Amino acid sequence: VSTPQPPFFTYTRRVQFAETDLAGIVHFSMFFRYLEEAEHAMWRAAGIKIAGDPNGYHWPRVGATCDFKRALRFEDEFEVRIRVAQMRSRTIHYACDVVCNGAVAATGTMTSACVRLVNDRMTATEIPEYVKAALTRVTAA
Amino acid sequence: VSTPQPPFFTYTRRVQFAETDLAGIVHFSMFFRYLEEAEHAMWRAAGIKIAGDPNGYHWPRVGATCDFKRALRFEDEFEVRIRVAQMRSRTIHYACDVVCNGAVAATGTMTSACVRLVNDRMTATEIPEYVKAALTRVTAA
Amino acid sequence: VSTPQPPFFTYTRRVQFAETDLAGIVHFSMFFRYLEEAEHAMWRAAGIKIAGDPNGYHWPRVGATCDFKRALRFEDEFEVRIRVAQMRSRTIHYACDVVCNGAVAATGTMTSACVRLVNDRMTATEIPEYVKAALTRVTAA
Amino acid sequence: VSTPQPPFFTYTRRVQFAETDLAGIVHFSMFFRYLEEAEHAMWRAAGIKIAGDPNGYHWPRVGATCDFKRALRFEDEFEVRIRVAQMRSRTIHYACDVVCNGAVAATGTMTSACVRLVNDRMTATEIPEYVKAALTRVTAA
Repeated sequence: VSTPQPPFFTYTRRVQFAETDLAGIVHFSMFFRYLEEAEHAMWRAAGIKIAGDPNGYHWPRVGATCDFKRALRFEDEFEVRIRVAQMRSRTIHYACDVVCNGAVAATGTMTSACVRLVNDRMTATEIPEYVKAALTRVTAA
Repeated sequence: VSTPQPPFFTYTRRVQFAETDLAGIVHFSMFFRYLEEAEHAMWRAAGIKIAGDPNGYHWPRVGATCDFKRALRFEDEFEVRIRVAQMRSRTIHYACDVVCNGAVAATGTMTSACVRLVNDRMTATEIPEYVKAALTRVTAA
Repeated sequence: VSTPQPPFFTYTRRVQFAETDLAGIVHFSMFFRYLEEAEHAMWRAAGIKIAGDPNGYHWPRVGATCDFKRALRFEDEFEVRIRVAQMRSRTIHYACDVVCNGAVAATGTMTSACVRLVNDRMTATEIPEYVKAALTRVTAA
Repeated sequence: VSTPQPPFFTYTRRVQFAETDLAGIVHFSMFFRYLEEAEHAMWRAAGIKIAGDPNGYHWPRVGATCDFKRALRFEDEFEVRIRVAQMRSRTIHYACDVVCNGAVAATGTMTSACVRLVNDRMTATEIPEYVKAALTRVTAA
């Protein structure tokens, strides 16, 4: 797993009560939601739409990973630092660090495919240039 | 709040780890999901579809309440006992008991409206007879 | 249901993707999490702790209700306006409005009890004065 | 990612409404909850406790991955097939297949560490023999 170096996009968030479990820490599945929230905040900042795109693109998840290093607890404020680690013709691969109090709590990745509905079936397609340009712009220093 | 008397429909479930919070008990918002799971199990048992109905009916929630009496904990097995407390022309009102180890853990209600899309807008409409009949049948005896 | 009038505390939030369901709108159970997030933000602003209180107080939920008036959708930004509608000796009753684009999307209530662990059992107890004072202060104009 | 071959443990589940998102399919973060539910069902079947162990062992997650191949939809019934892919002295590595209608919907892994609280700090420790024996037994043909 490669960890984000600048440039990256930063999303700030606070741990909510319902996100913890009986072990007193954030449930591991929540980290994947934090990564996604960061991705969507990055898309909004880039001026592009991950859902409801007028050109009919969809971005289903094809893979996700996370390594957990330190627990997050109720009311912790943390950052997700996200960058596009690899832009292929039909998939985007994100690398993320979850950082709390100066330490990396988790390192994660997500991979999404670019698809369009053709005869009601999701069909892999080329990532449009305006998406590539917008994501490059938003993570530039 | 009226509590379910027979006839009712029974849905059985076990508490999952991620449904607990740092207090070591099931988060209160999860009870609403348990009530809904019971409702949907009842609809399946009744042979009707709450989503993807071929006649275009939708059932948005218009209200929900829950009173919490005893905590549920990880791995507890419990029942949701659900019945149609009131069937109006355009709304269904459910009453539910969540029962664990012979004691009522929570008492809840949910109210849903019957709507159809008319010119892309949700419009309240009469509950069709086949839905009324199916829900009556499944909670009888 | 009484609706919040000033003074109230305002919590601002954006709808996240995972909070929607196949109907394309926020799942009704999420509204209860939004109400709780507002409550906890109010406690933080008031300088008091709803979890990890050094004096050993806990605040289990004894009831919650919500009426749903308008759907919330992905990326909607909304406010939860919360106030203490009734402070009894051992329970706090909150009233909330969820407001999006100037319209009330939902109206909810939550009631919590003040308890302390006595011999490992939750026992209802008087709400301490510093909590009452802090919550009054934070919602004052 | 290695995929489960017999012997494995099988956990059966149905997709619930609140687990879907606006794309009409199960949100990717839910798959990690499905894997965990399967793990916990396996531990129960093996007669061991993943939470509340009387010997004070805890099993924090150190990593998780998932590859998504086919969408799951509301009311789909599916199996999680889980096995211990690697048992090291202090970590357990699980491999899982999520199977629906005879096709693999997702392939995932989870890694947990064995820890004990020493002076209030989680400290990695050897996995006890009774856990190893129980997990071997439950996945044997």
